[in-house]
This record gives sequence, structure tokens and C-alpha cells, in this order.
Amino acid sequence: MTVTADGHEQKADTAPQLAPVIDTDVHEMISGPRFLFYIDEPYRSRIHINNWTGTHLPYTWPTTGGVARPDTIRTPGERAGGDLNMMREQHLDPYNIKYALLTGLLYPTEFKVQPDFATAIARGYNNWLIKEWLRKDERFLGCMHIAAQDPASAVAEIDRIGPHPKIVQIMLPAMSHDTLGRDFYHPIYEAAVRHDLAIGFHHGTTTETAVGLPPYFIEWHTAAAQAWQSQLISLVAGGVFDKFPSLRVVMVESSWTWLPHLMWRFDKNYRALRREIPWVKRLPSEYIREQVKFTTQPMENPDNPQHLLDMFEMVGTDEFLMFSSDYPHWDSDSPERSLPSCFSPELKQKILYDNAAKFYRIGEYAR
Amino acid sequence: MTVTADGHEQKADTAPQLAPVIDTDVHEMISGPRFLFYIDEPYRSRIHINNWTGTHLPYTWPTTGGVARPDTIRTPGERAGGDLNMMREQHLDPYNIKYALLTGLLYPTEFKVQPDFATAIARGYNNWLIKEWLRKDERFLGCMHIAAQDPASAVAEIDRIGPHPKIVQIMLPAMSHDTLGRDFYHPIYEAAVRHDLAIGFHHGTTTETAVGLPPYFIEWHTAAAQAWQSQLISLVAGGVFDKFPSLRVVMVESSWTWLPHLMWRFDKNYRALRREIPWVKRLPSEYIREQVKFTTQPMENPDNPQHLLDMFEMVGTDEFLMFSSDYPHWDSDSPERSLPSCFSPELKQKILYDNAAKFYRIGEYAR
Repeated sequence: MTVTADGHEQKADTAPQLAPVIDTDVHEMISGPRFLFYIDEPYRSRIHINNWTGTHLPYTWPTTGGVARPDTIRTPGERAGGDLNMMREQHLDPYNIKYALLTGLLYPTEFKVQPDFATAIARGYNNWLIKEWLRKDERFLGCMHIAAQDPASAVAEIDRIGPHPKIVQIMLPAMSHDTLGRDFYHPIYEAAVRHDLAIGFHHGTTTETAVGLPPYFIEWHTAAAQAWQSQLISLVAGGVFDKFPSLRVVMVESSWTWLPHLMWRFDKNYRALRREIPWVKRLPSEYIREQVKFTTQPMENPDNPQHLLDMFEMVGTDEFLMFSSDYPHWDSDSPERSLPSCFSPELKQKILYDNAAKFYRIGEYAR
Repeated sequence: MTVTADGHEQKADTAPQLAPVIDTDVHEMISGPRFLFYIDEPYRSRIHINNWTGTHLPYTWPTTGGVARPDTIRTPGERAGGDLNMMREQHLDPYNIKYALLTGLLYPTEFKVQPDFATAIARGYNNWLIKEWLRKDERFLGCMHIAAQDPASAVAEIDRIGPHPKIVQIMLPAMSHDTLGRDFYHPIYEAAVRHDLAIGFHHGTTTETAVGLPPYFIEWHTAAAQAWQSQLISLVAGGVFDKFPSLRVVMVESSWTWLPHLMWRFDKNYRALRREIPWVKRLPSEYIREQVKFTTQPMENPDNPQHLLDMFEMVGTDEFLMFSSDYPHWDSDSPERSLPSCFSPELKQKILYDNAAKFYRIGEYAR
């Protein structure tokens, strides 16, 4: 039986037969007014007085639970993912999640106005994350948030929070209004390397597609991977991996079966067009294979799951993929059921634990 | 020896050993002022007086030939693809191109202002295409252009030009400022079906990505397929294939190895989210497999070309792909060299000829 720092007991019989799992995408959410007290003045009052509601995608959600699984909301108005004990009972305990990366769902980098306010929100979020979550359960690893539109303040925040032993990653949004591989953002990657933090890209509320926001949510969701693709292309073309060869990047919730296409096309274009970006010294696929990881959810389910194994062959490694649940969202995956039965036990072990342990320097991989 | 309508003789020894090819993407280009005489007044004078230059991507081209192969321009200022005899000598004759679809490179649908002017340009283009190209060489098949932002005028133009025996397709741009599956555009698909014309999507000068126009051309080109993906998603989600089950669509120059990813993701989302688009009655992949074709160029070249055969397995058919050269552009492909040697002779035959013959109703497939 495991007892957490705040006294929660994981029942011994909940997941006795399951191998331990590292979940690389769990959304702990802000629910209720408590978060406000973590925001410094004068920004706290601005939220309170103005009834500021943040950035939002304009779609209504076509599922019965809205953006969340219906069973993750006990009372209407409550925000799914805001209840630590429910998260433990529904997800961490029964699936034997040994480590869960808390990725949040608030990207101050997306605020298109008032950058100092965005920086204040990032600061408050990070303090709230440490106090309300990381300190309460040993299984949590934290992803800090920043306001990348003000790189100097973002770097100051990374220097402030980065040394915390439970902080393993800096989150950036796969947004559409700027390319994050530009020189302007390089101080952030330099700070990430300095503190040995990974960079995680996740969609936000300003993630658009090649046609902006298409009319229906199903169109947006089907095309959303485009935004991660474009940010990945930008990181390579912007020379980020040349400048920071030890930088570790993960595309969270991007899906990944588009990767062979992108690597082939990018390599071919590099061979023909590299004079345009002479600071990029190697084939794009080499940086991607060596420095970029992906998470499983939303897992594609081809009728013939063998095709997913073919996709691993095409990517050229099976160490790029890490399990993620996306708890508590409508399309969240369980570690037990999301990987097809044709995956070997060795491959499952890599996806469910080892790849993430290595990437996040957990256990035997600790530095 | 073949002699064309305007007296050009294909030398008997140019391509004796090559099987005939259907090339689904050849860019015949407007070069010099002659085109002006095909534009009705008062629009002709507006171009002449205003020095109107059309829409353009803002990138400079990083190759030695600019957008074109250097050997396709004899004198500076000339536009590649504007010289019929050069096209014959460099491309049609030596590669034994039996049919070439002339796709142009001017999309009045992309003009964001003055829709009547766009309609006049489309009219002029179609008249010019027939008189300056289609009448001169029996190998040419024509793609008409329209101004889809004014569907009534576009339909009138389809009714005017569609019956021409050499016109086989209507071109639309994989643009980013609107989704072409919307109800607003359905009269165009109805007219296409009425005249048994295919719809071809090709990038234009307003084709953007999930991050708009990224800083470098290599980024744009690597991500450009996103625009076709979004338009394809829009056609399905907009119910175009439900409404027009005999509509034939082809994605020209979109590349295609992203297709397994898109089909898997779209099907999975359809199963979860179809209540949002109840007019769509079948799995998205079914419409795509039955009604949508792709062209080869730009052909991806994985280190292991066997991976392309795996991709055919994933798509679930080998009848969706048709050879295209993209002559005279910088990255154009030859029918001889673009298909890897691991493709069987039967598969090559389908890609180089049969799939297009069936799709465009050529020879034994004529109606």
C-alpha cells in the first residue's frame, strides 16, 4: 500500500496485476476561485473585477461530456480534472500510474495582448501547481508554463521554477499565430537546456489549421495535428536543434502517424532547398529521430493494427513514443486498452514506461 | 510518326521503348501579352492600364531556376511553360506522354476582391486554353478554371465550357481563406456532375499552413499538403460526397503519404463525433477511397522505397494514384525515374496510365 504526502492510501488490490505506467499527459485543472490567490496584484484584481475568462476555442463540444469524460464531473459547473482525489481514484490508482506529468491546460503564450499579464498568470500557475498538486502526491511530475511572447520574463521564470526537483518540462502551445522556431524564442530553449528541462508542445485555444478554424469541431480535431507539424518544421528550419543539440522536445497529443510523411518530405526538400536555411546542417529527420518524442493519445486505430508496426519501421525507431492518457478529456485512453494486442510485450513496456523514464530521467536514468 | 493538328512531328525515335503515359499535371503558362486579347472589356483595359499582376506567394524561390526548371526558360523574362514546342520537345515527345492534362497556374477563385473581374479572367483563360493549346495538339486535355466565390457565374461558365470534348476537369485552389466543402459551393459540384467533369484541387498563391505563411519557403513547401488535407476534410464534413455520389475529385500535387494518418484519424473522430455532422452517412475513408484520387508529384523518396508499398496497403487500394510530372517546375518528375524499382510492372502501369485512363474516361473507358 502506498500513502501519499497528503495521506491518500492507494488500495493494495486496485491494480495488482498491472505493470507500472508513466502517463505523459494528465490535465490537472483549475476549478473554483482558489487559483486566484496565486496571482500577484494588480493582476489578481483585474481578473476578479473584469470577469476575465481567458482564451477559448469557439466550438461547442459535440460529446455528452463536453470537453471532458462525463464521469469526471460530479456536479455541474465543476471543472473536470480539478479534483485530486477523483483523479487518483479514477485514473492513477486503478491503472497503476507510477508517474503522471501534469500538463495543465492554460497557455499564457497564447494571450495575444498584455504580455505582462500573461507572465503573471504563468507565475501564478506554476506556484499553484507546486503547492496544490506536486507537493501532495509523489507520483506527479510538473510541467511549468511560461509567457513566451516575452522571452526575457519567460527565461526569468524558467530560472525561478526550473530548479524545482519535480519540474521536468516547459509547455508551449502548438499555436497558429507565430512559429516558435524563430530566433526570438531561442533564449527559452537555451534556458531549457540550462535546467535540463524538456519542451512540451500541446495544442491550445489558438491552435488553428491550414484553413483557420474550419466550420465544425470534427474538422478542427481531424486536422489539428497540422499545428504541431508546422511548429516541428519551424524548430528544425529555425536551427533550434543545431544550436541546442541536447534540447529534448515532445509533441504531446499531436498523434504521430503523420511522421513518416513529414520526415520524407522534409528530407527531400532539405536536399533541394537547403541553401535557404544554411544554418541547418543535417537532414531534418535526423534531428527529429534524435531529439523529438511523441505521446500516444489520440491513438489511431487502423482496422489492421499491424499498420502501426509498419509506421514504427518507417520512423526508424520505437523509442520515440510515450504513453499518454489525456485524462480527463472526452477521448482519453487507458494504458490497458489503447495499445493493440499485436504490439509485443517489449514494445508495450517501452511505450508504457521505459521511453518516458529515459526521456524524463526517471529511476535508473536519473542524472 | 505522329503529326499534331498544327503540324508538329513527333520523331519516331524519341521514345520508342517507353510505354505511353498520362500526365495529370502539366503547367501550360501564360507568357507575353497575347493572353490579354482573350479578356473581355472592360476588364482587359483594367489589366493593361493598371499593370495588374495577379496574386503571388511572397517567397523568393531558393532554386537556381526560380519556380521553374532552368532549362525550360530560353530567354530571361520568358515564362516557363509558355512555349508549346519546347514543352513537346522537352517533355511530351521524349517521355511518350499520350495525354497531358493542362492545369494552368491561375486560380480566379483566389482573388479576394472584385469577383466579376475574377469571373472575366476565368472566361478569358478558358477561351485561351482551348484556342492556344487544346486545338493544337491531340495529346492535351483541358482543365477549366472558374471563380468559385461567385457560384452562379461559376456554374454558368461550367455550362458554357463543360461540354467541350477536351475539357475533363474543373480546377479549384487548395486555398486557406475558405473551406470549399461549404453548402455555398455545392452548385459547382452539381454542375461538375452534370457535365461529368472531375474536380481538381491544386495549391495556389493563397495556400497557407496551420501557421499561415511560415518564414521560409522550405517550411511552406514541407507543410503545404495541410491545405489539401483541410479541403478534403471539408468536402467530407460538408456532405459533398453524400450529396454527389458520382462526383470525382483529385488532389493534384498534394502528395499522398499523409493519407493513412488522415483516414484513420477522420474515421475514429467520425465514430465519436458524427452527431455534429449527421448528413454524413458513411465513414470518411469510404468516400475518400471511392471518390478521391491523388497524383504522384512531389513523390516522396524514403530510403527504403518498400515503405511506399506499405502505404498503398494502408490506403487499401492501388487505384488512387496517377502519374504527374508538374512540368516545367523546379521539382518536376519524369515518368521513368519517379517510381521506385520495387514497384511491380503492373503497379507502374496503373500509376502511369490505367488509373488516369479510368478516372478521366480515356480510350476503352470512354463513355
